[in-house]
Amino acid sequence: MSVIEIVEVGARDGLQNEPDILPTAAKVALIEHAIAAGARRIETASFVNPKRVPQMADGEAVMAALPQRTDVTYIGLALNERGAERALATQIDEVGAVVVASDAFGMRNQAQTSTESIATAQRIVALSKAAGRSAQVTISVAFGCPFEGEIPPERVVAIAQEIAVCEPREIALADTIGVAVPAQVKRLFSAVRAAIGPAIPLRAHFHNTRNTGLANAWAAYEAGAATLDSSLGGLGGCPFAPNATGNIPTEDLIYLLHRSGVATGLNLDRLLEAGQWLTTIMGRTLPAMTTRAGAFPAAQVIAS
Amino acid sequence: MSVIEIVEVGARDGLQNEPDILPTAAKVALIEHAIAAGARRIETASFVNPKRVPQMADGEAVMAALPQRTDVTYIGLALNERGAERALATQIDEVGAVVVASDAFGMRNQAQTSTESIATAQRIVALSKAAGRSAQVTISVAFGCPFEGEIPPERVVAIAQEIAVCEPREIALADTIGVAVPAQVKRLFSAVRAAIGPAIPLRAHFHNTRNTGLANAWAAYEAGAATLDSSLGGLGGCPFAPNATGNIPTEDLIYLLHRSGVATGLNLDRLLEAGQWLTTIMGRTLPAMTTRAGAFPAAQVIAS
Repeated sequence: MSVIEIVEVGARDGLQNEPDILPTAAKVALIEHAIAAGARRIETASFVNPKRVPQMADGEAVMAALPQRTDVTYIGLALNERGAERALATQIDEVGAVVVASDAFGMRNQAQTSTESIATAQRIVALSKAAGRSAQVTISVAFGCPFEGEIPPERVVAIAQEIAVCEPREIALADTIGVAVPAQVKRLFSAVRAAIGPAIPLRAHFHNTRNTGLANAWAAYEAGAATLDSSLGGLGGCPFAPNATGNIPTEDLIYLLHRSGVATGLNLDRLLEAGQWLTTIMGRTLPAMTTRAGAFPAAQVIAS
Repeated sequence: MSVIEIVEVGARDGLQNEPDILPTAAKVALIEHAIAAGARRIETASFVNPKRVPQMADGEAVMAALPQRTDVTYIGLALNERGAERALATQIDEVGAVVVASDAFGMRNQAQTSTESIATAQRIVALSKAAGRSAQVTISVAFGCPFEGEIPPERVVAIAQEIAVCEPREIALADTIGVAVPAQVKRLFSAVRAAIGPAIPLRAHFHNTRNTGLANAWAAYEAGAATLDSSLGGLGGCPFAPNATGNIPTEDLIYLLHRSGVATGLNLDRLLEAGQWLTTIMGRTLPAMTTRAGAFPAAQVIAS
């Protein structure tokens, strides 16, 4: 049986666009539900400017409240050295840096050009390693930019090569705005793999904005990605912005993978329970569909 | 550039579970919107018991109102000879028969065992050919049954072999309840193709009940399916049954295919307009996501 690793991103990328600030205790409960369902690598916090992302202002409090577990990797996002230092002052196991594949997106998202973001990520990786922690780098808008349009694959490959020099734990290719399609995913993952060699694992990050997210995840698996990001419930949509939609839902991804014979270490029944709990917490129907439809085959198939 | 054919099923499979009966004129308008967007093969009506499926009671009226076009294939569904005779009395170009892969589903859906449904489909194909029309056969619940659970692939292969004898225009494998995953799709399409030889094209029919529908469609394309079913807007969900969800949305499927370099003959911009019109007609948000998010790259990408 094949295996793929899952990073649960609901508590960070999933929540960060929610207009209503969730209490720290609810964020901790979300992460504990994920752990109970088998998640062992989890984005738990973002150490960014609290004025720009108020939902993530309690990163330190979330980390202080989480159980200390040697079998779970907590990931904190940092866009600059200040953020990395904040992350490293907590029990964070791993720092996630973000490089942008487009200057226009980078200036808006983190006030950095693509080149500046690469240099910053390299320093974040070095800082984290010096503190005895792990670090990885995500290349955002790798499949398309809302301002520049198409991103040349050669540019993403060149960025991955520059990043590989600092030897992060892994490099992720992120479809930040949900425009990728499976053929593109296979091409880009194959091109990056060919350019950086076999040493550094690749992670894939998809949003389901145009209903292609699960197809992209499967394509990334087939192209050799070692890890997939997903969010419980498919969190990440903003109820006030119909064009903004969530990460691919963990429940649906695990249903797809397990039924395809790919092991993840997660427990689908527990995920569906967690998804139902999350639906209550969020007070609305979430994008995850298996949570509503149920797994198949059901534990007891209706007797004929 | 690769090519795949699309069958627009919104006016039949999409609408049949809608609790509110649409006026005949609205159904005709839906089909005309699809034609305007480039659809050239369309499920337009179902000739089944009007007491069981009231939404489809006006099949004859729909067919009488549709433009006579030699470049468009209108498909009518029939579950028995009476239905086929009704279809053949209209301008229907092609009759679609339905074989069931499970007795339990067959008895509930059409009061036929699997074996009985095969014999019926063979007679429907013969009747249609004798009337100078085309006919094809869909194998329903081919990827799983709500009553029997898993369907052995060997059973689906054996059914396809029996059906192939009567030489339908094509054979479709249908995931009637939306449980399939891409690995299963590839295996089943490959097994059926190996068993029946290259002469009869294969069509794929998916529902997005567990968010795997687009991934399955891409897997079917990669496995050599010649044709994919989809419904404008992702029609097919029932607003009063959260577990019942729609066909894969035409807009999202065409976005995925075109951006992957696979031609369909459809025009995405016209489809998105049609989807917006349909949203107004149905009075609710429909499952299609590209209709809300917009295509990418946009005609005018936001200037940086």
